[in-house]
Amino acid sequence: MCSNGPVLLDFWESPYGQRVRIALAEKGLEYEYKEEDLFNKSDLLRKSNPVYKKVPVLIHDGKTICESLIIMEYIDEVWSDKVKILPSDPYQRAQARFWADFSNKVCECGQRLWQLKGEGQEAAKKEMIEKLRLFEAELGDKEYFGGDNFGFVDIALVPLTSCFYTYETCANFKIEEAAPKIVAWAKRCMERESVAKSLYEPSKVYDFVCFLKKHFGFE
Amino acid sequence: MCSNGPVLLDFWESPYGQRVRIALAEKGLEYEYKEEDLFNKSDLLRKSNPVYKKVPVLIHDGKTICESLIIMEYIDEVWSDKVKILPSDPYQRAQARFWADFSNKVCECGQRLWQLKGEGQEAAKKEMIEKLRLFEAELGDKEYFGGDNFGFVDIALVPLTSCFYTYETCANFKIEEAAPKIVAWAKRCMERESVAKSLYEPSKVYDFVCFLKKHFGFE
Repeated sequence: MCSNGPVLLDFWESPYGQRVRIALAEKGLEYEYKEEDLFNKSDLLRKSNPVYKKVPVLIHDGKTICESLIIMEYIDEVWSDKVKILPSDPYQRAQARFWADFSNKVCECGQRLWQLKGEGQEAAKKEMIEKLRLFEAELGDKEYFGGDNFGFVDIALVPLTSCFYTYETCANFKIEEAAPKIVAWAKRCMERESVAKSLYEPSKVYDFVCFLKKHFGFE
Repeated sequence: MCSNGPVLLDFWESPYGQRVRIALAEKGLEYEYKEEDLFNKSDLLRKSNPVYKKVPVLIHDGKTICESLIIMEYIDEVWSDKVKILPSDPYQRAQARFWADFSNKVCECGQRLWQLKGEGQEAAKKEMIEKLRLFEAELGDKEYFGGDNFGFVDIALVPLTSCFYTYETCANFKIEEAAPKIVAWAKRCMERESVAKSLYEPSKVYDFVCFLKKHFGFE
């Protein structure tokens, strides 16, 4: 906790929020974490993110920054003296932004996968496999998406790996069969303290998704 | 035309492609423009953007960059000695990225507005008005979204203004009543050569959308 440092409005299970937590941890920054009640959002969240009213929001020097990938770039630019999250070469930066943005589409597909049933779920499962295979090809034999360095795309995608068990259980398939390199990469990422302390047990994520399904009538 | 310079794969009516054209024009860069046939996409486009197979794609120094906002940042970073598109302050950059991303959502909403009928179209119209009012509030009394400087958000949003006539005609409403400052801002932007030469007559855009509606059976 640091009363003069950044404040993060977040929710434990949010993969978008987890990205920001990992970025802050990679930079070695102290910050105040404020857990939001998603069923009773705080006035601070509504005021700080009037367009979407969603976590994560970073409050820094009295200013608010919204949207996880934008917050990650902000953190990288403000604390540019610490480890770099984005590469310095413009083309490599563009590639990193492309794949980080594509990880948002994996997340959206994952939501459809657990919210839908029958044909809708089958379509989402097929799409999920296609998307993960594209990531698999992009990763290739590299240690991380950032090459030897854990970086922007790694941070953007890795929170979704704690949802893999949920996807697999909801739609009855094995991600490791479709994207074994991604599963191995996820394990490597989990060896980093920044990742391990920001993600949650896959079974806890699954229990939460089951609660959401029941709450919103997706069962 | 410049055989050694950047190559842009594009389609005349694409608001995403128009963003890139405006950015290149603002930087004063020469490039080769290659018009794509969207009903018979070139092998070059499919190979250059294997994930989405969509325009715009910028090819520069044998590398391909996809997604309009990412291309705009690439252009700004590579030709950083010319007029800046993004501000230099990290918070202002984050704000610009936020609103540029939000303009994508206006574009998606616009597609629903002309593709749907009845209640779906009414919902899209209502959403369009809400979104443009948010832009109206963000613009306030500034000359441009970038303040005194025409910048990232201006370039991201202005191509959509040539679709306003289409939105209005398809859903029977007047954008000027909901967002008069945005309409005035659009006129100011059109006084810039970079914008005027990249956008098309609203009636030509409308005719093209009518063709699409007929072709895809949205009528």
